[in-house]
Amino acid sequence: MSKACDDLLTNAKGRVFNFSSGPAPMPLSVLEQARDELLNWKDSGASVMEVSHRGKAFMQLAEESIEDLRNLLDIPDNYTVLFLQGGARGQFAGVPLNIKGSVTAADYVDSGFWAQSAITEAQRYLTVNVVSDGKKSNFQSLPKQSEWRLNADAAYLHYTPNETIGGLEFPFIPDSGSVPLVADMSSNILSRPLDISRFGIIYAGAQKNIGPAGLTVVIIRNDLMERKHPTCPSILSYKDQSSRNSMYNTPPTFAWYLSSLVFKWLKKSGGLKAIAEINERKANKLYGIIDKTGFYLNNVDKDWRSRMNVPFSIIDSTLDTVFLAKAEQEGFLSLKGHIAAGGMRASIYNAVPESHVDALIGFMTEFERRHG
Amino acid sequence: MSKACDDLLTNAKGRVFNFSSGPAPMPLSVLEQARDELLNWKDSGASVMEVSHRGKAFMQLAEESIEDLRNLLDIPDNYTVLFLQGGARGQFAGVPLNIKGSVTAADYVDSGFWAQSAITEAQRYLTVNVVSDGKKSNFQSLPKQSEWRLNADAAYLHYTPNETIGGLEFPFIPDSGSVPLVADMSSNILSRPLDISRFGIIYAGAQKNIGPAGLTVVIIRNDLMERKHPTCPSILSYKDQSSRNSMYNTPPTFAWYLSSLVFKWLKKSGGLKAIAEINERKANKLYGIIDKTGFYLNNVDKDWRSRMNVPFSIIDSTLDTVFLAKAEQEGFLSLKGHIAAGGMRASIYNAVPESHVDALIGFMTEFERRHG
Repeated sequence: MSKACDDLLTNAKGRVFNFSSGPAPMPLSVLEQARDELLNWKDSGASVMEVSHRGKAFMQLAEESIEDLRNLLDIPDNYTVLFLQGGARGQFAGVPLNIKGSVTAADYVDSGFWAQSAITEAQRYLTVNVVSDGKKSNFQSLPKQSEWRLNADAAYLHYTPNETIGGLEFPFIPDSGSVPLVADMSSNILSRPLDISRFGIIYAGAQKNIGPAGLTVVIIRNDLMERKHPTCPSILSYKDQSSRNSMYNTPPTFAWYLSSLVFKWLKKSGGLKAIAEINERKANKLYGIIDKTGFYLNNVDKDWRSRMNVPFSIIDSTLDTVFLAKAEQEGFLSLKGHIAAGGMRASIYNAVPESHVDALIGFMTEFERRHG
Repeated sequence: MSKACDDLLTNAKGRVFNFSSGPAPMPLSVLEQARDELLNWKDSGASVMEVSHRGKAFMQLAEESIEDLRNLLDIPDNYTVLFLQGGARGQFAGVPLNIKGSVTAADYVDSGFWAQSAITEAQRYLTVNVVSDGKKSNFQSLPKQSEWRLNADAAYLHYTPNETIGGLEFPFIPDSGSVPLVADMSSNILSRPLDISRFGIIYAGAQKNIGPAGLTVVIIRNDLMERKHPTCPSILSYKDQSSRNSMYNTPPTFAWYLSSLVFKWLKKSGGLKAIAEINERKANKLYGIIDKTGFYLNNVDKDWRSRMNVPFSIIDSTLDTVFLAKAEQEGFLSLKGHIAAGGMRASIYNAVPESHVDALIGFMTEFERRHG
């Protein structure tokens, strides 16, 4: 079995079963390589974090990492990849500031916490029309797209393909017609193949499926870079960053380096088709045990369940704290649900090995046997 | 000799003599600790970059690091410390967006490349009055403060205490009267004790004297946080970030962690008074060899010479490329001057051991002997 595959299937070296929603676990082989070359990168006699971002070695890393990402996601030539700072929250402002142009309104889909956060920030810059929301179903699903109230003259249509807190994931890519589709893909980018050509902009904080916190990936269709608002800070400007290969300001070089290793790991692991199969299997197993007897509970509509973030609780909610305490004792990290949601949440991003999900299922089965 | 002191005095483990202007060398002991606990931080069974920024362990790291920084710089209680993203370039926009309030103009001192970059960005948001510049001396010094054309009704007075490219460092803190003084201290923060109470805002990209690229430290007098412009992106908002302990968005946790280790290292090394003495000695030695015979050249007015960035050239400029090629062969990294300046530049931040400066001086002496 290859080393990359091995990471997906085994726990090792006293590391815990980490289900953090982000910053999230990294592939073990990536961390090991980073550790081994931390003081001396590529025989340079310096750490990768100590060399100039404009030097030949780092420039090569940067180019290759973008090439790898383009390859993994099969990104068409008329799109640019940017590596920025400020996270998805930065892009909540960055998107309107960059592409609203002279248009004064944009369409947003309200699928939960993160969509709402994007809406609140966008309202500083334009009129937000909420064209669909999950309120009726208490955010367990969203209306069919035929019921959305789309505006043909919107600057763009924004949605959140995966809600990290709600555990809601879109089972389809919305059809935005000629309006650019913008997606906050922070928590499910790289989890499966994607038809990039459907999107105007995809952005994602790195700290779930890409690398460590502090890096933001933006994939933008080139024609959209011409609409920048004059008050857009340069560090958020797609055009300024693009013309300087994401080095308008000093990039977070170490985070970039780790992300480049994650891309290599994904390629070695068989690319997005292979990881998608594993992700599907991990999620199915976990929802399987949740649904099995009615002891555990996840209310999200089955078609809308996230393959990345699995919130659940115990039908007897007094047992949630018992579960969490016991889980921590047994080496399960960060299973506590988001404060807004309560209960539990297992985030099972790419780098969470299937064996860790199996271990969690074993724990859940045993817990139910004792307390059910 | 303590381990911390040792880092300042010796080269070790096949690492090169690194004079990069930033991202710049880190203390060796910091890198060693980071390497040793990269897969398992504090017996958590996870890397520090894999745990939640809102978990107890990271929150404690964050608080302690800010306490250490407050301690090192003796920051008064009426100032807040923020750990943000986007570098000094982000703050070029962040400063006017946060503190211009209803005022429409600010004073800027033009000391060279970085001051000019700050001015260009600020002009998106307000009228910039350049109250003093180094043009007359070709940026080898600045006029005395008595000659500056300060405006008593300016939103703030901005200056760049150390110009990384020009190698110009202010020998005094400007007196801005009741106008808030704002300083881009990216390349000389923590290099010596500082009277924080003289400033309204200090900001600094981490990648010189603080830690790796991707973290930005802002120190702000609390009363200035009430002047935010409504279009200020939340990630750049001092007020929003302050009310959430710099975790309005997910912070760059690994960069924060490394910076926290650098603060500990500085404290162990005797604090800013001790490091200032070493910095003074390193700079004096280097300027000493440059001035000695006239073979090397640094034109900056002696009072204005930077203790952090030492640009120099050879009087016979055809020898510059010979020098750089030979230096690289002998393990001296990143001595090439900035493209805008040409020649050479040795950046000698806190983490550059005195022994590395001695090695460079040895090399320069030998080079002069052969080619002089």
